[in-house]
Amino acid sequence: MRFSLKPQDDAFYSFFTQAAENIQRGVKILEELGDDDADHQSISERLVDVEHDNDKLTHQLFQKINSSFVTPMDRQDMVRLASCLDDVLDYIEAAANLIYLYGLSELPAIPREMLEIVAVLSQQADATAEAMPKLKGLDERMKDYWIECNRLENDGDRNYRMCVVRLYSGEYDPLTVMKLKEVADMLEKACDGFENIANVIETIYVKES
Amino acid sequence: MRFSLKPQDDAFYSFFTQAAENIQRGVKILEELGDDDADHQSISERLVDVEHDNDKLTHQLFQKINSSFVTPMDRQDMVRLASCLDDVLDYIEAAANLIYLYGLSELPAIPREMLEIVAVLSQQADATAEAMPKLKGLDERMKDYWIECNRLENDGDRNYRMCVVRLYSGEYDPLTVMKLKEVADMLEKACDGFENIANVIETIYVKES
Amino acid sequence: MRFSLKPQDDAFYSFFTQAAENIQRGVKILEELGDDDADHQSISERLVDVEHDNDKLTHQLFQKINSSFVTPMDRQDMVRLASCLDDVLDYIEAAANLIYLYGLSELPAIPREMLEIVAVLSQQADATAEAMPKLKGLDERMKDYWIECNRLENDGDRNYRMCVVRLYSGEYDPLTVMKLKEVADMLEKACDGFENIANVIETIYVKES
Repeated sequence: MRFSLKPQDDAFYSFFTQAAENIQRGVKILEELGDDDADHQSISERLVDVEHDNDKLTHQLFQKINSSFVTPMDRQDMVRLASCLDDVLDYIEAAANLIYLYGLSELPAIPREMLEIVAVLSQQADATAEAMPKLKGLDERMKDYWIECNRLENDGDRNYRMCVVRLYSGEYDPLTVMKLKEVADMLEKACDGFENIANVIETIYVKES
Repeated sequence: MRFSLKPQDDAFYSFFTQAAENIQRGVKILEELGDDDADHQSISERLVDVEHDNDKLTHQLFQKINSSFVTPMDRQDMVRLASCLDDVLDYIEAAANLIYLYGLSELPAIPREMLEIVAVLSQQADATAEAMPKLKGLDERMKDYWIECNRLENDGDRNYRMCVVRLYSGEYDPLTVMKLKEVADMLEKACDGFENIANVIETIYVKES
Repeated sequence: MRFSLKPQDDAFYSFFTQAAENIQRGVKILEELGDDDADHQSISERLVDVEHDNDKLTHQLFQKINSSFVTPMDRQDMVRLASCLDDVLDYIEAAANLIYLYGLSELPAIPREMLEIVAVLSQQADATAEAMPKLKGLDERMKDYWIECNRLENDGDRNYRMCVVRLYSGEYDPLTVMKLKEVADMLEKACDGFENIANVIETIYVKES
């Protein structure tokens, strides 16, 4: 660990680790969409709960930032990182909510290509949860995380495009295509959201090192 | 009012109040969409005028920022706040323009759920116009505004989702759904835009206090 | 050229000029969409190459930023400018890829209104490539670039709206409309991306002057 004149207040670092773990919990629930007897209403409702948990956590962080005289990282970078983590959960929750809200449960199945986007989200969530504890001390192994992030973002992008090609194949009626497209867009925003997290961490490294 | 070493140049604060008032004027025009004999062309054209007025105002602020030796707030925060205020008017103007441009006047009526998003915009515009004068002196009552903002953003979100469910109900043909969906998306961006304004103000408070 | 205490490291400035030239190359390829016998696969593949070239360039810049003790501009502004330049190429590449991916080659022709958005992109690319060398020394003639940018962004916006009106005219079936709309959206994002570039440069001027 490198020497630092700044206080290494563990509570700040622990916050980001917890938020990343909330995302992991959320993605695990989202993966149930692939189950044969998936209960779309329950998936949506449990994701709302996880999202609320994370909102509370974010609120606590903001209060701690405001009430702390010194902070281990730039205040605004921490606000930005917490917001990016929160955004990913918002998108995941929204995707599940749309599936329930639009009555997509009546489809024989969620398109396989859509579940493949969720599979990428699961890997991104794991990589992010693994990376967060490295933030303390600006651990150099963060580089592996960036490389992995970049690779997964490309995977997500490709899966998303394949998903949309499937939706536009003529297999579904136009209104169903619109509904499914919105869900796919939300999942893709979640994929991109993980990249935003990586970018903020990169900004912190550029500034602090 | 707290003591400050920074100059309290009223012109800067007055700018933000005026911009918020322009948004109020704009939303009032947008609300005419609910009238029985709404003139969509006139609504669109008058909103273009309000938006141009605000563009001029924003331009004046940028010139003042550039020509001032000291400013009461961080220059970039002011640029960001002015941009966020301007964005909201852009979205409102765009929504009205799309309704006119896509010939949606031919529909028997604008869907009720869409007017309910506009009703939220109206409350958000009022809350923002009320908040702006509190910026000077970093008035602590700004907290009420954030709470109100958050509540209204949730209302806007819910109304937007209900609106899209209505659009996807099968009542409209696919092309009409696409057109109306674009209008709804623009209105939702305006709702989100108010949240961005609140976030920038929060950033200013975090930094200055 | 104004006097500066900061090092005028030409490599940084040269980077931005090269990135703007990559965008020019990319738009030139995109313009082939208007040719009678346009090869959509080849257009898409060559744009992927240009985009990869620019990714490498961006990566080199980030490494140089990280390894330099002093930089002629704020590090984060340079990161932001490079990202904005990269975004434009991403959108251009994505537009061409969607045309190929969705099999839009089977249409008798790309709608004329869509090619008019590309024509604006071409002018924006030229204006940006011309502006980049003025960044060094904060050349005052940058003002002409901002005025031009603003004008072109308005042109792009108008052409985009006309394009969507054409798509919604009833001439195409709903699925084809959705596909073409996505391409148009991507082209519009590229137009907006040029405005983001101009905004970052404005931020740099506000801060440094």
